[in-house]
Amino acid sequence: VAERSGDILVINPNSNTAVTAGMDQALAAFRFAGGPAIRCATLAEGPLRRMVEADNAADAFVIACYSDPGLHLCREGTRRPVFGIAECAVLTALARGDRFGVIAIAQKSIRRHARYLRQMSLIERLAGERPLDVSVAESASEGTLKRMVETGRALVDEDGADVLIMGCAGMARHRRPLEDALGVPVIDPTQAAVAMAIGTVQAAL
Amino acid sequence: VAERSGDILVINPNSNTAVTAGMDQALAAFRFAGGPAIRCATLAEGPLRRMVEADNAADAFVIACYSDPGLHLCREGTRRPVFGIAECAVLTALARGDRFGVIAIAQKSIRRHARYLRQMSLIERLAGERPLDVSVAESASEGTLKRMVETGRALVDEDGADVLIMGCAGMARHRRPLEDALGVPVIDPTQAAVAMAIGTVQAAL
Amino acid sequence: VAERSGDILVINPNSNTAVTAGMDQALAAFRFAGGPAIRCATLAEGPLRRMVEADNAADAFVIACYSDPGLHLCREGTRRPVFGIAECAVLTALARGDRFGVIAIAQKSIRRHARYLRQMSLIERLAGERPLDVSVAESASEGTLKRMVETGRALVDEDGADVLIMGCAGMARHRRPLEDALGVPVIDPTQAAVAMAIGTVQAAL
Amino acid sequence: VAERSGDILVINPNSNTAVTAGMDQALAAFRFAGGPAIRCATLAEGPLRRMVEADNAADAFVIACYSDPGLHLCREGTRRPVFGIAECAVLTALARGDRFGVIAIAQKSIRRHARYLRQMSLIERLAGERPLDVSVAESASEGTLKRMVETGRALVDEDGADVLIMGCAGMARHRRPLEDALGVPVIDPTQAAVAMAIGTVQAAL
Amino acid sequence: VAERSGDILVINPNSNTAVTAGMDQALAAFRFAGGPAIRCATLAEGPLRRMVEADNAADAFVIACYSDPGLHLCREGTRRPVFGIAECAVLTALARGDRFGVIAIAQKSIRRHARYLRQMSLIERLAGERPLDVSVAESASEGTLKRMVETGRALVDEDGADVLIMGCAGMARHRRPLEDALGVPVIDPTQAAVAMAIGTVQAAL
Amino acid sequence: VAERSGDILVINPNSNTAVTAGMDQALAAFRFAGGPAIRCATLAEGPLRRMVEADNAADAFVIACYSDPGLHLCREGTRRPVFGIAECAVLTALARGDRFGVIAIAQKSIRRHARYLRQMSLIERLAGERPLDVSVAESASEGTLKRMVETGRALVDEDGADVLIMGCAGMARHRRPLEDALGVPVIDPTQAAVAMAIGTVQAAL
Repeated sequence: VAERSGDILVINPNSNTAVTAGMDQALAAFRFAGGPAIRCATLAEGPLRRMVEADNAADAFVIACYSDPGLHLCREGTRRPVFGIAECAVLTALARGDRFGVIAIAQKSIRRHARYLRQMSLIERLAGERPLDVSVAESASEGTLKRMVETGRALVDEDGADVLIMGCAGMARHRRPLEDALGVPVIDPTQAAVAMAIGTVQAAL
Repeated sequence: VAERSGDILVINPNSNTAVTAGMDQALAAFRFAGGPAIRCATLAEGPLRRMVEADNAADAFVIACYSDPGLHLCREGTRRPVFGIAECAVLTALARGDRFGVIAIAQKSIRRHARYLRQMSLIERLAGERPLDVSVAESASEGTLKRMVETGRALVDEDGADVLIMGCAGMARHRRPLEDALGVPVIDPTQAAVAMAIGTVQAAL
Repeated sequence: VAERSGDILVINPNSNTAVTAGMDQALAAFRFAGGPAIRCATLAEGPLRRMVEADNAADAFVIACYSDPGLHLCREGTRRPVFGIAECAVLTALARGDRFGVIAIAQKSIRRHARYLRQMSLIERLAGERPLDVSVAESASEGTLKRMVETGRALVDEDGADVLIMGCAGMARHRRPLEDALGVPVIDPTQAAVAMAIGTVQAAL
Repeated sequence: VAERSGDILVINPNSNTAVTAGMDQALAAFRFAGGPAIRCATLAEGPLRRMVEADNAADAFVIACYSDPGLHLCREGTRRPVFGIAECAVLTALARGDRFGVIAIAQKSIRRHARYLRQMSLIERLAGERPLDVSVAESASEGTLKRMVETGRALVDEDGADVLIMGCAGMARHRRPLEDALGVPVIDPTQAAVAMAIGTVQAAL
Repeated sequence: VAERSGDILVINPNSNTAVTAGMDQALAAFRFAGGPAIRCATLAEGPLRRMVEADNAADAFVIACYSDPGLHLCREGTRRPVFGIAECAVLTALARGDRFGVIAIAQKSIRRHARYLRQMSLIERLAGERPLDVSVAESASEGTLKRMVETGRALVDEDGADVLIMGCAGMARHRRPLEDALGVPVIDPTQAAVAMAIGTVQAAL
Repeated sequence: VAERSGDILVINPNSNTAVTAGMDQALAAFRFAGGPAIRCATLAEGPLRRMVEADNAADAFVIACYSDPGLHLCREGTRRPVFGIAECAVLTALARGDRFGVIAIAQKSIRRHARYLRQMSLIERLAGERPLDVSVAESASEGTLKRMVETGRALVDEDGADVLIMGCAGMARHRRPLEDALGVPVIDPTQAAVAMAIGTVQAAL
């Protein structure tokens, strides 16, 4: 279709390379022959904005931490599109259900997420957010699924959510089994952001 | 990556086959080897919901009219994802800018769109909507671009939009020149919805 | 006062003639000598908008189904006022209390009602909505009152409602006993809409 | 239908008997044989709440000043319904159009009205409010109509209103000619409140 | 710094001199050498606005009742700043936490407070309000602390408040022990308003 | 009154020592014998949060840049109160008027401020924000006053503001002449935050 293929750089700003590897795997289904390259990278040190400004290959960037740290700073540093996985997850959830629930890693991030939802003017459609109270590393382990199902069920049954967001970049492997167990759509935030990035990159060809 | 490819059915509910053909062309860049098939169809007669229920091939549906008619009815008729292009366009715009402007076909649809934005709880981020006052057929003609640029400029300069939505499925060919002329992101609603549909279909593989 | 009396057409769009008969009875107290005629009709087949456009006698229309189906389409089809019973019930409730509760027929309509309240920008004042989980036919039966009292009490005591709406055109007979049992105002939506229609018709004389 | 007829007491709290007389005349079309009596009274001195508590005849009260002074205090003083004309006018306007405009007597009341609309959670649907800058007495004079038409036209054409409220109890005589001149519904607040009061009184029979 | 010191008049509009005495004591720490005088007075009779207009010494006024009665009327009566303790308490709480809880004297004031929060457009950040169900006199007694701790704990643990407001001018003595017991900031409304008044008076020197 | 006096550390995070000196001067009237010490410091290098954590003397902190950078991070780093001057300015403005206007340094900060107002759920009361289009250094110069008066007048006359905020820590010297010229309250953000900090520190004694 196009002479050159696009390029999407997904940046994990939290220096946890295991999370980066998990994301890379979760994005396998988004890599098409003829479609944009999807590179996953870990921010080792220094400001995120500088990494964005220094990359000349990418047609679009994805900041892969469910707080969208530095998102607006990065946008001031480039004219190329920059997507935040929290923002894209919420926006994608709104196309799948009426009120969304969020499975958070930890209690302490919930107020920050609420401030962010207010900033986006999207908090009206939040059903609730509940914590797993595990570490980022634990969130990716198979044993965490049971706790995610319980937490997701409470969001659906008690809080009224009809779509769920996994509130961390490291939970990708749980998306499918969680959706199967709960019967409502489950959004992996990195996949949501990469799909929007693909849409933008392809539209620009 | 996957054994079978997904399938997305894009339905133009307005019986205008020229619009369907235009959409089909605008989606060329979204068809990947190994990616989901993207079929475009015109609703000839009868209720949209029945067409959705009768289709057994699609993994996801896109309703391609910028009022999202029958969107919620269709969702009640199937467990497969159904996307509306107005909803997806607005959600995608929110990932590209702070306040969005909409270029409408006609004045009379603006109040309906405002009701819909309130229904989605997204009206706070509307910068403004302005009409072209042309027919759907005219909207696709090359001569309409000049008027779109003027309308888009008013949305940016007077209403404060930093991202624009083309408020009709038939305007796809103008996306790129409009973006070039105005210097802000321009969203084609059908492309926005199809990108989200691809994301959903690939995530489910 | 006036040379001619006005005429109000109340349309039950759901083809259930028992519901129409119940409404007709509930509106007896709104028929005054010298006041507008109040006709109740069932939509047998075809689009509601066509029935509105085809009626030349009415000075105002009331769409009598608690989802206000086709309300805005009907308004596009006539310059005469068209009232929806859900809209009028909510607006009337806001003149009687601070936060309203809704007794719904079934769980599945609650999300649709919430979307509608957001569309009207009135959801901030919703205390809650709870389902009876009965059929429309059952909702009119005497035996349903007990369940309505329980549901209404939960809306008042647990959700904080200080005014209640009966969320179906067929519940009219329960208004008075429900109000007596619960001690808060109870709104029958058809009566609410007809009162507004009378006000509009008489003001225009 | 009923053995006794209801009784509605409309209280003008501003001691201007000419306004009371004008209201009384504007309510002629709301007095039906067999319908509730509609008495108009002027609050001569003392607190409004005491006048409400002292009246044993009324089934419902209407506070007829477009600021709804003392409305909530009166409601604390009686279990009978108390309607405020500003509240009822806004609620009625929302059943007639998408965004309402208000023709105010004076600039200085506009901020107070805005606070009140926020209190009711209804300000989202305000198109605008513009002052006549006349006295209450002048507002009822025939010569004021021209200025009302100009003000109403600005609300419609510049602010986007599709329904108008006359923001004073003394403007009743202008409703019909204003509506004829502007082609959008015009709400007299006292009529709006009395219609709701009639609905409540008749429903309780 | 300045040639003359400012003067702040704190008015208790509720004729309870014990409350005035308690406030006076709670404001001791806000009286500085060289800072504004802080006078506490009880409104004996007559309208609050007249007391404000009649005082020529004050540079700023504080209305010390947690309903801010007559606040806007007083502001119409003087060009000097007039602060309401409820308004200032809420605004100050928003600088200390994300969502605030209110400990009210009685259940019946909670709806009035909610209306007021909507009027200020601040209700989005209310976590909850719970009543002590004591009299104003009791609220100041030492024995009430235990009940305040229980109520505050429910606001924090069940409603999600991370900052608390004592919803009455007479609770000042409980501020410190309540904060110590609960571990979240506790706002005394009179202190909050006087701090804002000091800021205004000193800025004007 | 108290055995020890409190201590407030005002941090200018922007490494501009001239701004720090201007703030220090603007706070002279807030230093009382017996009141808290008010120290002004410039963040030379390193993260703001570390400076807050490293200071053991302060009872409260003020972040003195009208974007409140790092405010929430600092709050996570200490249990002592941390005030942001933008947040405090807006909250203080809401106690002085109905809708506030902001005089910004530059156009590019206006969208960031709007996001922040949405995050605080306070944007409903924003009348408008207009830029001076000067540098931070220029904003403090005497010659800038004329431009500030023009900008403030537009906010009042065209946007409907009845209270103004100077949207930069460096504008303090213009507060009084601006207020005199425009006849509406003008808030200096640093003074607003320090007043709140004094209130908190004194209440804790």
